[in-house]
Amino acid sequence: MSLKGFQFSVVEAAIKKPGRKDLALIWSEVPATAVAVFTTNAVKAAPVLLSMERITCGQAQALVVNSGNANACTGSQGMVDARETTRLLAEGLGVDEQLVQVCSTGVIGVPLPMDRLRAALPALVEGRGAATLDTLAAAIMTTDTFPKTAVRQGSANGSSYTVAGTAKGAGMIMPNMATMLAFVLTDAAVEPGLLNRLFRAAVDRSFNAITIDGDTSTNDTCLLMANGAAGNQQITGDTPEAIAFAALLDEVLLDLAKQIVKDGEGATKFVEIRLTGAVNDADAKRAALAVANSSLVKTAFFGQDANWGRIFAAVGYSGAQVDPDRLALWFDDVCMAKAGIFAGADAEARGTAVLRQKELCVTVDLGLGAGQATVYTSDLSHDYVSINADYRT
Amino acid sequence: MSLKGFQFSVVEAAIKKPGRKDLALIWSEVPATAVAVFTTNAVKAAPVLLSMERITCGQAQALVVNSGNANACTGSQGMVDARETTRLLAEGLGVDEQLVQVCSTGVIGVPLPMDRLRAALPALVEGRGAATLDTLAAAIMTTDTFPKTAVRQGSANGSSYTVAGTAKGAGMIMPNMATMLAFVLTDAAVEPGLLNRLFRAAVDRSFNAITIDGDTSTNDTCLLMANGAAGNQQITGDTPEAIAFAALLDEVLLDLAKQIVKDGEGATKFVEIRLTGAVNDADAKRAALAVANSSLVKTAFFGQDANWGRIFAAVGYSGAQVDPDRLALWFDDVCMAKAGIFAGADAEARGTAVLRQKELCVTVDLGLGAGQATVYTSDLSHDYVSINADYRT
Repeated sequence: MSLKGFQFSVVEAAIKKPGRKDLALIWSEVPATAVAVFTTNAVKAAPVLLSMERITCGQAQALVVNSGNANACTGSQGMVDARETTRLLAEGLGVDEQLVQVCSTGVIGVPLPMDRLRAALPALVEGRGAATLDTLAAAIMTTDTFPKTAVRQGSANGSSYTVAGTAKGAGMIMPNMATMLAFVLTDAAVEPGLLNRLFRAAVDRSFNAITIDGDTSTNDTCLLMANGAAGNQQITGDTPEAIAFAALLDEVLLDLAKQIVKDGEGATKFVEIRLTGAVNDADAKRAALAVANSSLVKTAFFGQDANWGRIFAAVGYSGAQVDPDRLALWFDDVCMAKAGIFAGADAEARGTAVLRQKELCVTVDLGLGAGQATVYTSDLSHDYVSINADYRT
Repeated sequence: MSLKGFQFSVVEAAIKKPGRKDLALIWSEVPATAVAVFTTNAVKAAPVLLSMERITCGQAQALVVNSGNANACTGSQGMVDARETTRLLAEGLGVDEQLVQVCSTGVIGVPLPMDRLRAALPALVEGRGAATLDTLAAAIMTTDTFPKTAVRQGSANGSSYTVAGTAKGAGMIMPNMATMLAFVLTDAAVEPGLLNRLFRAAVDRSFNAITIDGDTSTNDTCLLMANGAAGNQQITGDTPEAIAFAALLDEVLLDLAKQIVKDGEGATKFVEIRLTGAVNDADAKRAALAVANSSLVKTAFFGQDANWGRIFAAVGYSGAQVDPDRLALWFDDVCMAKAGIFAGADAEARGTAVLRQKELCVTVDLGLGAGQATVYTSDLSHDYVSINADYRT
């Protein structure tokens, strides 16, 4: 990967089970322009509170992230621990503490094992450059079954640049945001205001459009760092370069978000829910999320049962404006219902065949206006229950 | 049972699987004062729309209910079928069609098998008095594993009276309302305005305080008929008799609602969620429902894992006003967390023991005000997934 000016490091701090890397560092050789979004949960983990405070300066040079412990619901000690971690790291790296972001993911309510974490920090600093994006991706995993990365190349005014990202998350996935960490790095030079605007739009179409179980975590963080090491002329305003960069950023975030859904705890299916014909986009998203979060709809997907009535029922209670006699539904290109009623036995057979696929698209049209939204979700399987019933043991 | 002036009838109309009664009649010898609440789902089944229209007259004398088919998402034919059912029944019974209420529960989106239903109606009319509350309760079941009834006796000014009810519902259970039918009958004479007020308050504390999967159905109906056959002096206003009647009504509705949760699809546990210390009661209910509906919390209950952090996370995203540093949590009388942080290893062991019980109470205190709410829910088990993956097959 040709991402310039960033280095990675991962070590084992014995926070997770033995033999698994659980402490990672992203280091930019120069201070990078940084923007981030955080969980909307009122109960925010200490590292989230600390990172929110620091991101206001608009720059970051290092990110330290541990997996295995969320440092959430840990009271004032949690904040003391988060601060100490970044202070020690800043000393080791020789940077201002303000430029160090911190993330944690894992079990809630257990204090960080600071003795082990402290002991591991020197090797983390020392190891800069030894890790790859892939090993970084593996080190931030919790219940994830595969590491998640996405890389795209672009060019601006003759200089080529890279947008690369990694994410973790599998359950507790719900917009605004999920138990999800996502770190997106680019060596492109981008005007800070533009970067912020493009980033937030891309997050809305990706990480804020996925849901697995409707649970919003205490620790979600999505961070973007742009360090300008590609040496391109700074991308600004409404230029073709800005449009091209926006497209790449969108692609990387959506790629990562879809990987999270595909790794949804126990998921056997990837389902795109397209909601059209709503009175506005907000109503469309409300209805799409109600369908995507319905346990009854999701178990029907798992059972490969074309139980379309449950989808209309979910739309009906979503709070979106709905006229039951105008509802239409498709599984891929098979029309299952129109004008609120069933399309017939032929549709049943063809719709069931679509549900046997590993990936499918459910389109619901409300027939009222031009509002639309797309969200991505998984089914609800026996394995989801198993994974979450025994998570801490 | 000494409920006076009501008769029941059940027959097999071959709507459900062979050998199961699926068509039932509740008949009052005289027109009864009637009040009802219906699903808030924007997609309402035809029988709901018809019954809503009829209940405005404040009286009912008959209720016909079928199980096995919801007559929902069936378009204009659904309404034609619901009307024809009540018209034929009204003719058979010799009453005004306006006094006939109709309910359906079962699969969505399939037209009612009207030929079989029509053929069964004469026997239904003929059989009045042959069925009991228990056989009625069995005839309205769908995925329910046991029939649900509750009976209480009271007296007013020397006349004894009865409040009796039956309900069905096991999944798709969420306030306002659930796939839930509940019929409550009393032979007491009660002033109609008072009856309406007491009924709505009792519904709020019972059927609107239970949730299994957060899905609100298209067909929910809770109907109360009071026929005055007990011969008591009419219960009115703010009298001791009204208070006593209200208490009995509350008991019957709460008893039925709790039975629904205990029969929650695949449920292995009955969990009471008490939310205290909210800024107001509405916030308390919002937070309590977020906990009760969280898939992560419910799988942890199933796994008997005292993963209290998930409860705080759910409270945090509920939308209720929350100060993370004031949160406290108890499993029965074991304090698991206080001032937002874990109470320690001893609490872990004792809390886990509470989670091994079949019934438990989870109390969350927000530490902000006097708002409170209680809701009832079940855990989320492998069997919930199995039941709902294969519901139609």
